[in-house]
Amino acid sequence: MIKIIHGGVTAPSGFRANGVVCGIKKSKKKDLALIVSDRLCIATGTFTQNQLVASCVTYDRDRLKGGRAQAIIANSGNANCLNGTSGMANTVKMAKAAAEALGIRADHVLTGSTGVIGVPLPIKKILAAVPTLAAGLSRRGSGEAAQAILTTDRLNKEIAVEIKIGRRAVRIGAIAKGAGMIHPNMILTDQKHATMLCYITTDAAITLGALRAALGRAAMRTFNAISIDADQSTNDMAVILANGAAQNAVIREGTPEFKLFAKALEMISLSLAKLMVQDAEGATKFVEISVRNARTQEEAREAARSVASSKLVKCALFGSDPNWGRIAAAVGYSRAHVDPKKIMVKLGSEVVLRNGGRAAQSPAALHKVFRKKNIKITVDLGVGKSQATAWTCDLSTGYVRINSAYRT
Amino acid sequence: MIKIIHGGVTAPSGFRANGVVCGIKKSKKKDLALIVSDRLCIATGTFTQNQLVASCVTYDRDRLKGGRAQAIIANSGNANCLNGTSGMANTVKMAKAAAEALGIRADHVLTGSTGVIGVPLPIKKILAAVPTLAAGLSRRGSGEAAQAILTTDRLNKEIAVEIKIGRRAVRIGAIAKGAGMIHPNMILTDQKHATMLCYITTDAAITLGALRAALGRAAMRTFNAISIDADQSTNDMAVILANGAAQNAVIREGTPEFKLFAKALEMISLSLAKLMVQDAEGATKFVEISVRNARTQEEAREAARSVASSKLVKCALFGSDPNWGRIAAAVGYSRAHVDPKKIMVKLGSEVVLRNGGRAAQSPAALHKVFRKKNIKITVDLGVGKSQATAWTCDLSTGYVRINSAYRT
Repeated sequence: MIKIIHGGVTAPSGFRANGVVCGIKKSKKKDLALIVSDRLCIATGTFTQNQLVASCVTYDRDRLKGGRAQAIIANSGNANCLNGTSGMANTVKMAKAAAEALGIRADHVLTGSTGVIGVPLPIKKILAAVPTLAAGLSRRGSGEAAQAILTTDRLNKEIAVEIKIGRRAVRIGAIAKGAGMIHPNMILTDQKHATMLCYITTDAAITLGALRAALGRAAMRTFNAISIDADQSTNDMAVILANGAAQNAVIREGTPEFKLFAKALEMISLSLAKLMVQDAEGATKFVEISVRNARTQEEAREAARSVASSKLVKCALFGSDPNWGRIAAAVGYSRAHVDPKKIMVKLGSEVVLRNGGRAAQSPAALHKVFRKKNIKITVDLGVGKSQATAWTCDLSTGYVRINSAYRT
Repeated sequence: MIKIIHGGVTAPSGFRANGVVCGIKKSKKKDLALIVSDRLCIATGTFTQNQLVASCVTYDRDRLKGGRAQAIIANSGNANCLNGTSGMANTVKMAKAAAEALGIRADHVLTGSTGVIGVPLPIKKILAAVPTLAAGLSRRGSGEAAQAILTTDRLNKEIAVEIKIGRRAVRIGAIAKGAGMIHPNMILTDQKHATMLCYITTDAAITLGALRAALGRAAMRTFNAISIDADQSTNDMAVILANGAAQNAVIREGTPEFKLFAKALEMISLSLAKLMVQDAEGATKFVEISVRNARTQEEAREAARSVASSKLVKCALFGSDPNWGRIAAAVGYSRAHVDPKKIMVKLGSEVVLRNGGRAAQSPAALHKVFRKKNIKITVDLGVGKSQATAWTCDLSTGYVRINSAYRT
């Protein structure tokens, strides 16, 4: 059983968090977050596969080679990406300042950044704020940290759950930000290296292998299945710290306890991924695209994401126009194998395409489906047995307005 | 020397054209076009690689296996795509009606359609209009035909040029439509199979092989290098008919005459491709993206098109916000190999990214570049010797408005 609880990243035992205004954002909103465990954690992360990455991504991938970390310091308002050699120098300074304030080793501190690319990080503002940030750490500080990593997001994204491992209560908590430049395609650290940020904490005792397996699978089926604008960021990351404070019997891969933990982690990841899409820049609709009976899972994913990325499909969603031909076209140009005679497309429960042509349709019923805030599109390729789901939003005039004046 | 002349598809000797209102479009604008040569032509075409294609694409690919055609009948307002078995039946009826009215063989008539997918073609309206359409064919009818293939386009797209092959004047003329669902990726007929439509006529005497080589190369470097919305259509096609009426010595591959012909064809194709982008749905900017020093030409193309397809880059262009980090990010997530230390990005003549970081920039100069209607972006990957250019437009609130209410 997975129970939803309060507390975000500070719900698991031994974690404290905080978020403050350090002055990066002109809006004077919170822009610097800190999460820390009272003991060293087993840690891993998934990172963007963009070939141009922010300094925080390079830095964290290096730190996580050892599979250990204790704290995360993250700023919003600046991506610290493509800032030359000073970029990495400033990331190191950020981590060192946090380590010093916390009295822990600098190489046990992870970093995160999100915001504009190519603008020097105002490191002095960050360094000046770290002591206050650390002094304010609290067992109830998750909300402050969640707020401090937001950019164009309207809402805090926090969740926590509790499961039982043996007789021990084990908790997993997380905060995230999303909203724009969202088309994550993250993989685990030592493969290669999303600006979605997600920071997950757990008091589970778990092996590094099990933690990696659970996070890798959860990221693939949740974060990597959402798309807001098809732009894969230079900064995407989902990082998890496990401090063992729950004192459960160590969770190992292949056990029933692992399955429960992995399921709980996937549930948390999915909730946050969906929240990102619901809070997407300018979004007025929430759309689930299920692709069934593809030749392979990769092809199912490709087809679902192709529909989720189509400007024309997303404009039709914004306009509540059930123009299903655009959905079919986006599947047709994806890398998934499509047989024109076998593809079936459903809007809600209304079949629109079958046997190579339009199914008997009620225009009124279709319009009803597309006027909803939550829309489900099903594509059955009929050429295999694999399936995948993607989540996206519409493309609105609001999205264009937000992103045509993001920096000004 | 390539001389630009008047007359579009009817500039070459022996071609006549016309366009009429048959009643497919609710707007009562012209929606049925006919182009015909006074003799049988050598013919070839490039077609969309979307796996779901309109009946006209399937039909034309089949006809063009013989490398011969004499006429093209094309409608706008309906894509005749995903219309089941009646789709192909109606395409055949369209071709037969044109053949009958022209007194030529039905398998020498090509077809084209553009408009909404999945709505039955109003074939009776088309059949009823064919006699009038044929009766009105004229040596000055290119403009009528050009108008009849438009959908959301605001302007006619026509061009013609004249070259000298020996002492003979040889003419190439073309009409096209573009505006939306534009991300062509066409290849020649017998490889595989946009909604861009382009119909090209020439009075050159030329071998089929030379015609195919010239069209394949021109399409790759022009039509396949533009993107309006990254949605590859089910209906894209560029078709050329060569009737030999100029009575020049037959043009063969590898000769200086072939080079001149190919150059003229590429010039025509490029002009029309650029016109499509300039007339793109909602567009306020015209953008050229040059990628240099990629490892391969394919990688140069991938990088250029990734930037041309990025919603965030296109919103920044709409807002005149020189947010070059988005350009770098789009290159970084493309399939082109990128070395973060070697990539160089220029907006106009202003270098913005070099040596892994921001180059000394004048914000005023950058804003000046991005406020222009014509913007040039250069990306030097520094890892090879290949280059490619792509053309695109901005993503405006106007684009979203047009496409959220396309059918209503």
